[in-house]
Amino acid sequence: MNKVILLDKRPVGIPALTDFKFTNEELPVLKVGEVLLKTVYVSVDPYLRGRMKDTKSYVPPFQLGQPVQSGIIAEIIDSLNDNFKKGEYVVGSLKWAEYQISNGKGLTKVDPDAASLSAYLGVLGMTGLTAYLGFRNLGLPKAGETVVVSGAAGAVGNVVGQIAKIMGCRVVGLAGSDEKIESLKSRFGYDEAINYKTSANLEDAVKNACPDGVDIYFDNVGGNVSDAVLANIKYKSRIVICGAISLYNDTEPAMAPRVEGRLVVNSATMSGFIISDFAEQFPEGIQQLTTWLKEGKITQCETVVDGFDSIPQAFIDLFDGKNEGKMIVKI
Amino acid sequence: MNKVILLDKRPVGIPALTDFKFTNEELPVLKVGEVLLKTVYVSVDPYLRGRMKDTKSYVPPFQLGQPVQSGIIAEIIDSLNDNFKKGEYVVGSLKWAEYQISNGKGLTKVDPDAASLSAYLGVLGMTGLTAYLGFRNLGLPKAGETVVVSGAAGAVGNVVGQIAKIMGCRVVGLAGSDEKIESLKSRFGYDEAINYKTSANLEDAVKNACPDGVDIYFDNVGGNVSDAVLANIKYKSRIVICGAISLYNDTEPAMAPRVEGRLVVNSATMSGFIISDFAEQFPEGIQQLTTWLKEGKITQCETVVDGFDSIPQAFIDLFDGKNEGKMIVKI
Repeated sequence: MNKVILLDKRPVGIPALTDFKFTNEELPVLKVGEVLLKTVYVSVDPYLRGRMKDTKSYVPPFQLGQPVQSGIIAEIIDSLNDNFKKGEYVVGSLKWAEYQISNGKGLTKVDPDAASLSAYLGVLGMTGLTAYLGFRNLGLPKAGETVVVSGAAGAVGNVVGQIAKIMGCRVVGLAGSDEKIESLKSRFGYDEAINYKTSANLEDAVKNACPDGVDIYFDNVGGNVSDAVLANIKYKSRIVICGAISLYNDTEPAMAPRVEGRLVVNSATMSGFIISDFAEQFPEGIQQLTTWLKEGKITQCETVVDGFDSIPQAFIDLFDGKNEGKMIVKI
Repeated sequence: MNKVILLDKRPVGIPALTDFKFTNEELPVLKVGEVLLKTVYVSVDPYLRGRMKDTKSYVPPFQLGQPVQSGIIAEIIDSLNDNFKKGEYVVGSLKWAEYQISNGKGLTKVDPDAASLSAYLGVLGMTGLTAYLGFRNLGLPKAGETVVVSGAAGAVGNVVGQIAKIMGCRVVGLAGSDEKIESLKSRFGYDEAINYKTSANLEDAVKNACPDGVDIYFDNVGGNVSDAVLANIKYKSRIVICGAISLYNDTEPAMAPRVEGRLVVNSATMSGFIISDFAEQFPEGIQQLTTWLKEGKITQCETVVDGFDSIPQAFIDLFDGKNEGKMIVKI
């Protein structure tokens, strides 16, 4: 039996378990050039919600009746490909399946002795690269500047805050529970943290936390949280839009106070990005992140859920902020 | 008699003549170091609307009961300052007054033989610098790219389009009358022009004019016009926000479809600016604009209104798009 998870329906609003369908797929016999992979860790990510819509975006949408894909760590359990040996581990964009066959394209070997395997989906994977390259290339941080991170306890936000501290910035995080707020300050070095769910006036709360205004806003969330931060940006501030998890399940286009005027009077810049924009910098980025992790300057933060069958629920739980740091399913 | 125009009331919505008050001010005797100025040309600009509000912005608000100020060309008619001679002309941010005394600070001499005097408020003044430096520094144009300009028949827009053509771009203008549309194409070299007031579906009209999408959007207008352009931006597009004339008279914060998601999926950047951001580049900018004007590569475009008493109405008329190119009052 080889379980596979298909996209059965396009979610409307918050994804439901019934949008996914478990099936069994027999594996064909391995051909020359192919490897047999056993899934070990599965990354669930907010951006996957976008791929479940049938709209043009930077990656093609998932097809109905086809397996969902995401970042996965797999073990090579059989190989007819000279580049991969049985027992090695790889990371790649793979199907939500217990086992699958690959021709090796797009697979990158990872070293289980250099870091925990799951780290290659988090700090040493796309999550870490997104945080580091997005923040550095578009946030253009300078020591002493004030950085606000939304979704600060999420996978990317958690790493951005830590990198901002390494770079000498003052860091304020926005998150959705008192436990997360506490953890941001005590474990991850945030100077201030705000619970956006319980704050009576978020705009004022950001103002109190950033009396001199916001130099860099690294946004993973969008929506009302962003409006409160944007009301506090300062001259020549940089707004880096990494994601907008608060909007992904909207069924109507969300409305907001117009930003044009605010950007003009502050000579501010708002930039969106997708991590592949910086593909050329991936090797350098991984090297830097590995160094920081080894030096103990970055603390890894994961929420690990057990079992293949848990993948859809773990994905759904992202939109309820159930994760702290990177959400990973261990098979 | 020396007429002066004061801000009498803070406008609510569209400014009215009754927001301004004409008064007579006697001039004191000229002291050592001072010059006596006679106003020759007055620039009226949309951004002045912002200074009429009592809110913090990049320039302090006008005070009630005090003269309004804007860019003015004046003749030196008396001088006790060694740096200025009687008969010379200067440009500076000066009061809406027929005559005024200055200590010479902030005044720049202009040469009436090198260009028409009014050009120093337009192509060779802040208007031209705003167009050139904003477009070049934030639009980062490359030959062959598609540029959309809103307020294309306005003072800055008119120049941006011409510069974009010099730089080898394909240029599409948005303006509010068929006469302006015709003029953009026949006089100013725009490849396409769209009347946003009569277009049945502006988003589709922009799409038809830019089948490959928009690389650079230079925005002077904001509001619904921008929403239609933003729906057509492409990967790594640059949105340069110079002004938002459509919003300046709003009494409630205007709402818009959120831009976060659009910026992310296009890896796009939206930058606001004020021209003083680029003050260090003014000399170089003026040199380049002067060269282009002399070479006939830029055509000057002005709407000149006569008489000191016409200043408030000329200002008000900006919001109704009565001007083509730079709106100037000749005294």
